[in-house]
Amino acid sequence: MLSRMTLEQFAQALAAATPTPGGGSASAQAGAMAASLVQMMCDLTAGREQYRAHDEAVRAIRARAEGLRKDLLALVDRDAQAYDEVVRALRLPKGTDPEKRARALALERANLFAIESPLAIADACAALMGMGTGLAYKGNINVVSDVGVAALLAYAGLRGAILNVRVNLKGVQDETRAVRLRERVRRLEVDSEKLREEALTAIYLRTNGR
Amino acid sequence: MLSRMTLEQFAQALAAATPTPGGGSASAQAGAMAASLVQMMCDLTAGREQYRAHDEAVRAIRARAEGLRKDLLALVDRDAQAYDEVVRALRLPKGTDPEKRARALALERANLFAIESPLAIADACAALMGMGTGLAYKGNINVVSDVGVAALLAYAGLRGAILNVRVNLKGVQDETRAVRLRERVRRLEVDSEKLREEALTAIYLRTNGR
Repeated sequence: MLSRMTLEQFAQALAAATPTPGGGSASAQAGAMAASLVQMMCDLTAGREQYRAHDEAVRAIRARAEGLRKDLLALVDRDAQAYDEVVRALRLPKGTDPEKRARALALERANLFAIESPLAIADACAALMGMGTGLAYKGNINVVSDVGVAALLAYAGLRGAILNVRVNLKGVQDETRAVRLRERVRRLEVDSEKLREEALTAIYLRTNGR
Repeated sequence: MLSRMTLEQFAQALAAATPTPGGGSASAQAGAMAASLVQMMCDLTAGREQYRAHDEAVRAIRARAEGLRKDLLALVDRDAQAYDEVVRALRLPKGTDPEKRARALALERANLFAIESPLAIADACAALMGMGTGLAYKGNINVVSDVGVAALLAYAGLRGAILNVRVNLKGVQDETRAVRLRERVRRLEVDSEKLREEALTAIYLRTNGR
């Protein structure tokens, strides 16, 4: 399991010239670190007198962030497994017509499955970026830079996951599905830039006020 | 040692409501993953017939990326240690005038030391972004998305490290030094956006050509 590797081992596994783990798993790990920093900010804000007005909202964000951290750590592994399926399908025999058909079917299924994990990574990271911006305005001023790092890591995770969706989309034969997915990905890309600017603005405004 | 923690343990340590590890260590880890993916791209490009024209350049990038991966993993730990020094200085007694002076001196030294590691993270990540863009154009087309993820992670590491430099800069009393550091950080911020756009453009152009 990749999430049981040390940081050193994981870096080495990413560096190895093997199909997995690759950018998808690294994007999920970036997202998991973002979720962790959001959670830390919440714990250093909730229950403190000067932030009492936001207490309920902050506790709700904390619960979501903790869930997303676990999801994203699981996605570090799942993304690699899904891509291994694609590689397996690509290696199926294609000598005869029935073999070709079986291979095409297996590949289509593997590609669609391989799209699911980066899409889940992207959605989780987009949610974390929003939380990071909110907390940059409302959270404990002493850890605003940490929640800024969270937003930046979530941005990298989001755009990185999108790159992986696009790669697997090239193999999808079902055109209706492909069009729908391409639209969704395009929307996520546009959102990611808006979210990035909002996060950087929030951090700038909050840290230059003190 | 943080770099000997598993991904799960590290995420948990980041999430904990303790001063370290925080955004600086997470930025270094993002950079280390970026270096790993750059290295992978190099190993899947060097020695291949169709990329022969770039062989020497790619091998040179690989050597630099491997060095940066090790540096950045070491910085995951060093950033936390440096910040622990700041916390220790902040907790020194300040009852008498000699105590106040000793504390101010210890704090100035700790702040300047705490600025060094995020600056090193930022420089390493800026270099990795440039390598990522170059490889997006010249490297193995099958792993362009991975090198895209590398550039995005390096961007997050760079901007995240800058946020940490800025936090520690607020405490620096030596105004000449502070001005020089603020200028350097401002330049890194401007560069980071240029590098980000160049990387995303390279990936877009290369992946839409196939």
